[in-house]
Amino acid sequence: MPLAIGVDIGGTKVAAGVVDETGQIIDRTRRLTPSHDVAETEAVIAEVVAELAGRHEVSAVGIGAAGWIAADRATVLFSPHLAWRNEPLRDALSSAIGLPVVVENDANAAAWAEYRFGAARGGRVAVMVTLGTGIGGGLVVSGILFRGAFGVGCEYGHMTVVPDGRRCACGNRGCWEMYASGTALALDARELAAIAPVAAHRLMQLAGEDENKLTGPLVTQAANEGDPAAVEIYTAMGRWLGRGLANLAAVIDPTVFVIGGGVSDAGDLLLRPARQAFAEGLTGRGFRPVAEVRLAELGPDAGLVGAADLARRRF
Amino acid sequence: MPLAIGVDIGGTKVAAGVVDETGQIIDRTRRLTPSHDVAETEAVIAEVVAELAGRHEVSAVGIGAAGWIAADRATVLFSPHLAWRNEPLRDALSSAIGLPVVVENDANAAAWAEYRFGAARGGRVAVMVTLGTGIGGGLVVSGILFRGAFGVGCEYGHMTVVPDGRRCACGNRGCWEMYASGTALALDARELAAIAPVAAHRLMQLAGEDENKLTGPLVTQAANEGDPAAVEIYTAMGRWLGRGLANLAAVIDPTVFVIGGGVSDAGDLLLRPARQAFAEGLTGRGFRPVAEVRLAELGPDAGLVGAADLARRRF
Repeated sequence: MPLAIGVDIGGTKVAAGVVDETGQIIDRTRRLTPSHDVAETEAVIAEVVAELAGRHEVSAVGIGAAGWIAADRATVLFSPHLAWRNEPLRDALSSAIGLPVVVENDANAAAWAEYRFGAARGGRVAVMVTLGTGIGGGLVVSGILFRGAFGVGCEYGHMTVVPDGRRCACGNRGCWEMYASGTALALDARELAAIAPVAAHRLMQLAGEDENKLTGPLVTQAANEGDPAAVEIYTAMGRWLGRGLANLAAVIDPTVFVIGGGVSDAGDLLLRPARQAFAEGLTGRGFRPVAEVRLAELGPDAGLVGAADLARRRF
Repeated sequence: MPLAIGVDIGGTKVAAGVVDETGQIIDRTRRLTPSHDVAETEAVIAEVVAELAGRHEVSAVGIGAAGWIAADRATVLFSPHLAWRNEPLRDALSSAIGLPVVVENDANAAAWAEYRFGAARGGRVAVMVTLGTGIGGGLVVSGILFRGAFGVGCEYGHMTVVPDGRRCACGNRGCWEMYASGTALALDARELAAIAPVAAHRLMQLAGEDENKLTGPLVTQAANEGDPAAVEIYTAMGRWLGRGLANLAAVIDPTVFVIGGGVSDAGDLLLRPARQAFAEGLTGRGFRPVAEVRLAELGPDAGLVGAADLARRRF
């Protein structure tokens, strides 16, 4: 039974695991990401791989990175949270690791994992939307992971949904991820605290009365407690999620949407308004089959599992 | 050399042609569309096919229809400009015609034709945007026409680009085709005539001083004459075109966009602002390869040629 290592590189940590062909993680390890330094980050990746490869016989390594990966699956074109710019990551790692390596966008890897082992298992046309700091996207069509022509497709979070809207790190304004993500939750909470301190009372309490400490997870916490302001922020965010899904349905027409990422832990708080806005905003509604909207099943391991599986299938 | 018949059904006419394997139309005919009556429209289709099949030995018939075609390529789910609702068009025609029939969305057929014989020839990931009354869309990935899971993908014109924007026939507001199409040209010209009659002087002259006669083709005529108001309307429309292309690049990441349809006859008048807005609005610009934006090559025959070619390849 061939094993592969999956490595998930985020802005703050490197998580790695040994994954079997059923998608189970049979061993794992992690380190902090020294995100300011390319060589150090690569050394940490090599280190976690060496640690796991020392304990298991593995055939390949898949790296899931929060960045724009070229179609050759070797080069990181750009990474907003890491120091990589046109970095030949695969070759740098292959020599250090001594195993075949592929580099994948982390959201693509997560979409693949949900398609193979999770909520989109066997879906004919499966779209995955990962809600974290931003929005990650992935698409599997007839069992093939679609990466775009140059490797940078499925950047759903950067569809413009509000002309001249909120500024985004990508250089544009009004990107979907500025209205549906952890960042969107935090922005909304701060706006509310600034304009309606009484309504934001509980949120500010949780933030230690410091507006700058109003984060997405904190809004989730307040919403789960039933705080009306936090629930309202979630509802507004869920509606934006649903509107974006309706846009994607117009373009892609999938059988299933899978919603994952940390923000999706809120479950129905998010999904109820999202499904409603999706149904109300779907073009041609009433005259077409409608895609299902499901929660992801694999949690934060999806990227790691997907990267490993893609690497094993490649080699 | 196998021949196939392509039939293009529009709101006002049925155009049919005999197409060879190089995409050449070697014979053609046409009729007016009795769009109010399903049975009559089908009788007209059977009639044009019988006429052409009487003069040539053909193997199959492809129907390109301005409607939402189910994934079975047999049923028209819905057509805004024709009377079809869940109409089993393929079976109705097959028996009347006595030849194998496939039904395709007209924009998908046009995209296929441009991929096989036109501006996107051999493109790895080719997106076609057809600007007419609305926006038709198509996508060819690695030589395969992508129709969506249920047959209704690539409805790019119904991405929402302006929240709560102009009302669209699809039931939503703010659809892309309300800002980039012949309809958008007409709407803008009418808005201008209402608010700034002096600026719209030439446009109104061409419309016989009747606001309701301000149409897309008339704006094109005035813009080609150099009328500043018409040029400005075109520029604004071109910018919306470019912004929508940037959205599609975020989602699909194609190698090439092909812009076709009657409105694209304006050429640089439209393409210059479109390319500029596309370049300025492309997410990740500077860190990614950029798709080309080209004019279509096959003109109004694209749908007919593509439908014939798809039918021939199927049978």
